Parts: sequence; C-alpha cells; structure tokens
Amino acid sequence: MKKVILAPDSFKGTMSSYQICTIMEGGIGRYYPSCKVIKIPMADGGEGTVDCFLTACGGTCRTISAKGPYGQPIKAEYGILDDGETAVVEMAAAAGLPMVGSQKNPATTTTFGVGQLIADAALQKVSHIIIGLGGSCTNDAGCGAAAACGVKFLDANGDEFVPVGQTLDRIAKIDTSQIMPGLKSIRLTVMCDIDNPIYGSTGAAYVFAPQKGADNNMVKLLDDNLIYFANMVKNQLGIDISSIKSGGAAGGMGAGLYALLSARLKSGIDTMLSVTNFDDHLAGCDMVFTGEGRIDGQSVRGKVISGIAARAKKFNVPVCAVVGDIESDMGAIYDQGVTSVFSINQKAIPFELAKLRSETDLADTFDNILRFSRSAISINQNNSF
Amino acid sequence: MKKVILAPDSFKGTMSSYQICTIMEGGIGRYYPSCKVIKIPMADGGEGTVDCFLTACGGTCRTISAKGPYGQPIKAEYGILDDGETAVVEMAAAAGLPMVGSQKNPATTTTFGVGQLIADAALQKVSHIIIGLGGSCTNDAGCGAAAACGVKFLDANGDEFVPVGQTLDRIAKIDTSQIMPGLKSIRLTVMCDIDNPIYGSTGAAYVFAPQKGADNNMVKLLDDNLIYFANMVKNQLGIDISSIKSGGAAGGMGAGLYALLSARLKSGIDTMLSVTNFDDHLAGCDMVFTGEGRIDGQSVRGKVISGIAARAKKFNVPVCAVVGDIESDMGAIYDQGVTSVFSINQKAIPFELAKLRSETDLADTFDNILRFSRSAISINQNNSF
Repeated sequence: MKKVILAPDSFKGTMSSYQICTIMEGGIGRYYPSCKVIKIPMADGGEGTVDCFLTACGGTCRTISAKGPYGQPIKAEYGILDDGETAVVEMAAAAGLPMVGSQKNPATTTTFGVGQLIADAALQKVSHIIIGLGGSCTNDAGCGAAAACGVKFLDANGDEFVPVGQTLDRIAKIDTSQIMPGLKSIRLTVMCDIDNPIYGSTGAAYVFAPQKGADNNMVKLLDDNLIYFANMVKNQLGIDISSIKSGGAAGGMGAGLYALLSARLKSGIDTMLSVTNFDDHLAGCDMVFTGEGRIDGQSVRGKVISGIAARAKKFNVPVCAVVGDIESDMGAIYDQGVTSVFSINQKAIPFELAKLRSETDLADTFDNILRFSRSAISINQNNSF
Repeated sequence: MKKVILAPDSFKGTMSSYQICTIMEGGIGRYYPSCKVIKIPMADGGEGTVDCFLTACGGTCRTISAKGPYGQPIKAEYGILDDGETAVVEMAAAAGLPMVGSQKNPATTTTFGVGQLIADAALQKVSHIIIGLGGSCTNDAGCGAAAACGVKFLDANGDEFVPVGQTLDRIAKIDTSQIMPGLKSIRLTVMCDIDNPIYGSTGAAYVFAPQKGADNNMVKLLDDNLIYFANMVKNQLGIDISSIKSGGAAGGMGAGLYALLSARLKSGIDTMLSVTNFDDHLAGCDMVFTGEGRIDGQSVRGKVISGIAARAKKFNVPVCAVVGDIESDMGAIYDQGVTSVFSINQKAIPFELAKLRSETDLADTFDNILRFSRSAISINQNNSF
C-alpha cells in the first residue's frame, strides 16, 4: 500500500479517535514503512473536536481567560488551523458537562465563555469559525455565547442581562445591532451531533436536560422557556427557529446561533470531511481505515462510517471499518461503500472486561488485518488471481 | 483467488470442522465463484474423524454389527476411502464416552467393538487401516480390540478371557500367534491426540480416567493394572511400552495396539495431512484457511494450526486462521507460518451467549475476510503496491 487514510471515530468510553489513529499508524509503519499515512481522527463537535482538527490539518492552540458555566474564571482553549483562515471552537472547552462535576444545573449555567472564544477567534482575522456543539451542561439557547459576541438582551424594564435557561422568558427585546463588527464577515459553521428541534417532546429540554441534571419540573420550565425564546426570535428578528433540524443541539444553542449570529448548522461529520479536504486526500489512496465503538443499523444514517464510505465510494477507494461491537442489523453499510468490517473483540468476554483491553485488542486486530492484506496483495503479484 | 484449502479443526463444543468447511465454502463461492476449493476438515482421531477423511478423500461408510462398551450389540460404522486401500476406524464408533451416558466405568468397559471394526476392515483387502483414538470410555489398554483381532489372553488357569481395566492383572499369558492372517500385511496407523505415557502420574489412568467415571481408588487400581500389563508385555513379547509417547492414549490403547498389533502411533494431525496428500494440494494454492476454537500458547505445539502452518510455510502459501478466542500468548504461531489470525467474536459478550451464535459469527467474519481480500487484491491490480 502506498497511501492510506486513517479516519476513525472515537470508541465512546474507551478510546479517542486520536488514540485509534496512533495505534493504526503504528501498524501501517510496521508492514508498509513507505506508505503515506493521512490521519484524520473524526469528531462530531463534542469534546476532542479541536484536537482532531489540529491533527488532521495542523495548527496551534490559543488559550484565553474566559467565564465558565457558572461565570467563574477559567482558562479555555481553541484552535487556529494552519491555513490561518479557520478557527475551531468546541463548547466543551467552556460549557462542557464535565466542568460542573456534580453541580449540574441547566437552568442556571451559561454558554458565555463559548462566545468569548468565538469573539477572540474573530479578532485573529480568520474567515471561518467552526463551533463544535456537544457535551454541554447548558440550556440557554446559546444566548450567553451570543451576548459575549455583542447581542444585547433586555428585560421588560429595559435592563440588559445575560439570559440563562430559567430566565429566557424574561427577554423582552433582542438587539443584534451591536454584534462585534469583525464577526459579520466571518462564516460561522456549527457542528451538530443530533437532529433534534429546539423544543417539544423531541427537543433540547425533554431529551437532553435530564442528563444535565434537570428534574421533571425543570424540564418543563426549560421547554416552556425555549418556546418563549423561539417566539421572541420570530417576533423580533423574523426568523422561525421552531422546527429547524439540529436547533436543539447543546441546549438550543444550535437554533440560537443560527438566529442570533447567522451561523449555519451542519452535521459534524460533513464539516470535518469538508474542512479536512477529505475528497482531495482520496486521490491515489489505496484504502481508508475507519471505525467506531459499535456498528449497527443506526450507522447507516449520517454517522462517521457512512459519511466516509459515501465519499470513498465515489472515488472507488475501499473502506475497512474496525469497530468494537458489530450488530447484526448493520448489513446496509456495505451498500453505502464500506468494503469490510472487523470487530476488535478477541475473546468471548463481557464488555466490562473487554473495554479494559481495547487498545491491545485494536492493535492486534489491525495487525492481523495488515498481515492478511500483505498475503492477499501477494496473491495477485503471483498472477494467480 | 484461484485455489484455496479449507482445513479447520473443530471449535470444540460449538461447530464441527465439517460445518466450518461448509460455511467457509459458501463464502468462497460468493466472492470467488471460479475458485477451486479443497475441503480438508481436520480431526485428531476423536469423534468425527471418519467423516473428515470421507470429506477430504471421498469414500464410503461400512456398517457392521459389533459389541458396544458393555458387550451389548450395536451397529458401528467405519470408512473405506476412495483409493480402496485405506480404511478409517474411529474408536468413538464402538467405545466412545457418549455411548455409555451416565453409566461410566473405565474398569469394566471394553474396546472389543473397535477391534471388530479393524478386523472387518482387514477383510476388505485394504492395505492401510487408520485407527482414530480419542473420546473413549475405556481403560483396557486396547486388549479388547486386540482380542477381536485374534490375540489370546490367558489367565493363570490357562483360561482365555478378554481383559478389561480391572482384570488386566489376571493376564498370565499373551498369545499373538493366532492374529487374523490378513492383518499382518496391513499397515496400522493409530492417530493419537495426546502424548501421555501409558501409566504413572501423567499416564492414562491418572490423567484421563476421572473424566471417564473413575474415583480415586479406581484410578489407582487402573494405573496398577496398566503397570502390570506393561510388565507382562515386556516379559512375554519383549516390547517395552512403559514410556512410549502417546502410549496412554485412549486408556492405554495406544501402547496396546503398538505392542499387540504392531501399530504405529502418530499424531492425529500428521496422519490427516499425509493421508489427505495435503502437500500435493498446496501446489498452486493461494491461501489456506484454518482455525480452531481457541488459539493460545499451546497451539504452537503439534496442534492443527501449527501442523498446517509448518507445511504451508514450506510452499510459501499464506495461512489465515479463523478462530474462536485469541489468547495473548499465541504470538509464536506467526513464526510457524501462520500469516494472520481473526477471531469470530463480533460482540463483547460472554462465551455462554457467544457459542449460541457461533455459526453466524463465523459466516460473518469469514465474509468480511473475503470482502477485504478482494479489496486488497485490487490494490495490486491498480499497480499502486
């Protein structure tokens, strides 16, 4: 093999996509030392997204002082890619669920710090800011982030405030006239990992607020406030966010950034593939190795593997997926362009035990895939195909 | 691929080697419809050995009336291969452990029926009889089988009898002068699946009699009697069987047939590989697919996979092993000639659940190996290797 792309998703809870790339790269180096290896660890917008972009595209981290979910001072990082034109912000850096520990409260937490990262990036003369949503502790419809970028929220008394989940219904006026000037000419792309709308039974509050710490009463309050916010946006800005796809991402931040900062909402995988010039890398590529923690019937719908396979198929490049568990309903993935799928499970043991050895299992499985590839390639060299 | 050999061992407790061959053959047919497939399901001498030879070499079954482990009338089968020269008898057909159900008693059971199968084969004008040991319920040092072929055992009173485990010490004289005439010119090969000697702490009684139903006292009695028998053989026939390798196979039948019927003891795998002309089949072969239920540090020592790998290596044919569990200490198998090893485990679940889906797991794993092989072979076709 002369050129391969390594583009795995993370194995949730066991290995990051970066770790997986590193393990795979080691294997390639052993059996195909002169092979060109393109590493594109995949992310959907959640924690680790910045690192994935930096690995795939090159770039530097920039650290600033910002406000955390409870307004406390924190240091937060984002990435500026080597093209000098693209910044990548992940909301997990300033409003991530792990940051609040056991003090979860989606009614009072803010995305203000995420807005500070966006604002700082806008000052670095980039032309494109990618904002990865996912893993948030908030339900403020992105109002905090918007406020940090210059959007003003006024209450019925005309007093300015920064709305949080429980105070969205105090908004009486939204003023976007003072958004920081540099931001207006910058393209904002929001990476969304879910399709849910902003409110309702499949919306941000009902589906995701419980895991952020909300009880039933709080969920209802948050949902009511998101409805209020959507109506306010429609009345004040003339933008209908009630049913846009992915509007519910990150506590309604998808819809909020769409309406308040004119951001475009895209799937995480499509964003990564286009920003990393995935199609260009496919030229002359012998094989793409991808993977995820589990491949199943869902994997055919807008997930990492199917997204990669669709592109590779156009260029007739085979795709080998190395995964944790394989579910029996995953057959349709072949039609999408996946050539072969291997599980890393080496022994019949339960997941609690298997996850402790996932790195070794991946390394061993990939090692044997490469061993096999050499023997298969040599069949053809012997002209006996 | 133009030609492959399928030579798996059984996955003990889940799939026979014949079943595995059938599943693999289905996969090959799907992706390489014009590929020549040589099926050599492997056996070590135990139950299923006759079927494996018939699959690999062609041949017919012959059924005769014989005596079971307790002397009861049974129908028992053996195989005559298509060459007309070779018969294959497995002791499981007339003295197998499953035949006695819960009535296990290695002190009183006999191998007489196995000898009847051998004697019948000798009448069919074959030149070679292969006797598969393994899975026996007996501990009679093969005296029953020898008796059925004409060996006379006399007690101190000069009365003829057929010794069983608990009466080996009644033998006062062994008379081999009346062995059936046809047998003397026939080569007898005994397939042994273990290396243990006839008696002692690693001998037939101490290691294997407990699983045949012996308690501690019976084990001691059986071992004492095997010692007695070995001494008797030495005194009467001038043959020392005390420490020959595999003499303890099948309750001492290895040593017994060696001394009483001049049989040669060989490993099961070597016998199968030579009788099925494995080396000849390797000519022009693109790949050998083998496998077993579990690959581990033991697999490098005289087991199916290592035996196959050693031969394939000489002919530079890659060997792909498809197995149940992979143990981390199996690395040395690569040096022996195995190219790659894949586990059929598709999910992290315990063996109790995994074994219920082993056929599907094998089919799916092999399917993906073949899918991958096509993509790897095409890499070379694209001249990008």
